[in-house]
Amino acid sequence: MKQQQQLFVNVDRLEQTIEAFADYGRTENNGVTRLALSEPDIAVRGYFRQCCEELGMTVTVDDLGCMYATYAGTEDVPPIVIGSHMDTVKKGGRFDGILGVLAGLELVRTLKDYGIQPRIPIVVMNFTNEEGARFEPSMMASGVLAGRFDGDTMLAKTDPDGITFGDALNASGYAGEQQHRIREATAYLELHIEQGPVLESEQLAIGLVDCVVGMVCYEIEVQGDSNHAGTTPMSMRQDALFAANDLMLMLREQLAPLDEELVYTMGRMNVYPNIHTVIPNRVVFTLEARHKDEDVVHQVEQIIGALPKQQGGCEVKATRLWNRNTVWFDTHVCGVLQQAVKTLGYSHRTMASGAGHDAQFVADFLPSAMVFVPSVRGKSHCEEEFTPYEQCAQGVNVLLEAVMLMQEKA
Amino acid sequence: MKQQQQLFVNVDRLEQTIEAFADYGRTENNGVTRLALSEPDIAVRGYFRQCCEELGMTVTVDDLGCMYATYAGTEDVPPIVIGSHMDTVKKGGRFDGILGVLAGLELVRTLKDYGIQPRIPIVVMNFTNEEGARFEPSMMASGVLAGRFDGDTMLAKTDPDGITFGDALNASGYAGEQQHRIREATAYLELHIEQGPVLESEQLAIGLVDCVVGMVCYEIEVQGDSNHAGTTPMSMRQDALFAANDLMLMLREQLAPLDEELVYTMGRMNVYPNIHTVIPNRVVFTLEARHKDEDVVHQVEQIIGALPKQQGGCEVKATRLWNRNTVWFDTHVCGVLQQAVKTLGYSHRTMASGAGHDAQFVADFLPSAMVFVPSVRGKSHCEEEFTPYEQCAQGVNVLLEAVMLMQEKA
Repeated sequence: MKQQQQLFVNVDRLEQTIEAFADYGRTENNGVTRLALSEPDIAVRGYFRQCCEELGMTVTVDDLGCMYATYAGTEDVPPIVIGSHMDTVKKGGRFDGILGVLAGLELVRTLKDYGIQPRIPIVVMNFTNEEGARFEPSMMASGVLAGRFDGDTMLAKTDPDGITFGDALNASGYAGEQQHRIREATAYLELHIEQGPVLESEQLAIGLVDCVVGMVCYEIEVQGDSNHAGTTPMSMRQDALFAANDLMLMLREQLAPLDEELVYTMGRMNVYPNIHTVIPNRVVFTLEARHKDEDVVHQVEQIIGALPKQQGGCEVKATRLWNRNTVWFDTHVCGVLQQAVKTLGYSHRTMASGAGHDAQFVADFLPSAMVFVPSVRGKSHCEEEFTPYEQCAQGVNVLLEAVMLMQEKA
Repeated sequence: MKQQQQLFVNVDRLEQTIEAFADYGRTENNGVTRLALSEPDIAVRGYFRQCCEELGMTVTVDDLGCMYATYAGTEDVPPIVIGSHMDTVKKGGRFDGILGVLAGLELVRTLKDYGIQPRIPIVVMNFTNEEGARFEPSMMASGVLAGRFDGDTMLAKTDPDGITFGDALNASGYAGEQQHRIREATAYLELHIEQGPVLESEQLAIGLVDCVVGMVCYEIEVQGDSNHAGTTPMSMRQDALFAANDLMLMLREQLAPLDEELVYTMGRMNVYPNIHTVIPNRVVFTLEARHKDEDVVHQVEQIIGALPKQQGGCEVKATRLWNRNTVWFDTHVCGVLQQAVKTLGYSHRTMASGAGHDAQFVADFLPSAMVFVPSVRGKSHCEEEFTPYEQCAQGVNVLLEAVMLMQEKA
């Protein structure tokens, strides 16, 4: 099969679809709360299945609740998988995750519009519990598929109400068969909102994602001594907050000159006893840093390791909570996506993903790559999360063009 | 009556008394939890009354539950009042407050030992709810006596269980008569542990307290913008914690060169949303500063007022939560205490109180002064709080000597 004409998805239909799916768990402020296997997640799964079956797709479910809607190809070859997740965080947005699933749906609808049956089957996927907002860890199902997480351990994970993932899965009606787990594919493509401000600020339509950056997270604990704020002279204090203040500045000053793509965040900080009239005796803060180049991450760890063990009379202890290596996407798939975006003439850049995605685990066993579309003001995981529908459609067009390119026999 | 010999209190008896009173609410770790008008506070009041009555003292109670145990004098003149409070914070110590009450008890016992009936009556006082640990504010009863707080408003204050101060007072059996409130006195003397490390570090026995320092407390709020820690380049962040880090450093650098007796504390600091993967969008921290000289406190306020309104892309707002002026004690009473400590030959210094005490309100209407004894490692409001009994006794000896000096007719 040879591509005859440039195909474009239907932006109005895509908008309607995004909004129809957002009705499942829509919040007062036009966001979405759709925790994994919650009532709205179960309902939206039913609606997704219905939409797929109306297109003549076959829907199967694996033992982790991942859904696979297959649009048959003319040849019995490993499919092109287009997917992401439909669960959200609490008071999340209408785009994070579900855009990658609806991209697949709109892509198949467009093929039907044009009367095209592809050579290679297309599977539209919904991964269970990507956010980890109900059951930790995040990217749970893709992690099991990749062999990173143990399935039984994951099934025993509990939500804040003590319900296990396994019980929630059984109750939902989405505990399928292990044999349905995806094992091979021609490619795995995931369209996602950027969740950052780069594309918008650079006025670009498309981000071609070549990796998910490696990261490291430390907890830094400063132990001083609590005393009365009114009666302890400054020179006799072991003020854990003053010490932490110094340490944070040291870290910032040393991290700033490293590569400009390095990001580092002190997101969590707790002060004890946290009473205005008591000198803090303990401060704990996190430092999380991400960069695609492991040498840069290593430099960050050296800086943390070189922190003084004593600061302002306080004991300082740094503990690595976790780290993960950079995941590089498949160069062939990245190349096809690049060809697609060039064909379409969309403004674009190659970029790293700073956030985690199912694709980073899927990349372990399927040739994978991701496409980003802009996030207005870089916002995600909140009700304001937004990407103009035209830009969503451009992202789907890139996937569609890539799918068409892959149909051509080498 | 002319003083014939140098009087000393009985250190062993004082130790036994301190420990006997600490049995009321003693904690596992040898501290005391005796919240105002709680069961152990009611019980210790009964024991205090019994001890006083055994000495022939007359015990009255005012409408705020303050107890007055009067040891009659040979003349009907305004009494010398020796007092403090018997309530504690949760898991407080065996010395804070109660030492000032037991000082009066031991002093009267010593007079009895020596067969001395004083010319001026002696009143040993227990103020209700000084700590404010059950009913806010602290120094509640002394504040009402001084006219700083409205009595009815205070009676309506509730504890965390919703019980009003008035109901707790009625239930305790210590709701007495308003006519019993103290109105005039020759002097009010309060012995207290220092609650700071100065006397211990300078190896001094006695602190002669000439004032309770003025203070000011601000809340500084930094408003930035939350974004994903992995996807937002450093240059596009409005990180409220980085901005707060800069502001705290600015404050510390500008406050440090001010007078060396200035103390300043950032005791409370909250970071929002406080998630390691999210850039903080809001930080609120307190800055509380104390100094006896109001000019120095004013300099602190000028430094805070001159903070930038924008820092690192974040909005900065400083709000004064409260302030209080320095309370200077009565120069005549301070002079008598100084004479007493010199007569006794104890090592001593004049110092300010950084902490609040009933005496600072009592000073509004009675000639008042305080005496400090050392706190081991400066600790108070905790179970480790300790002052060697010999040092407690030295403090009581100073009060006893001062009382004897005041007996002499001018």
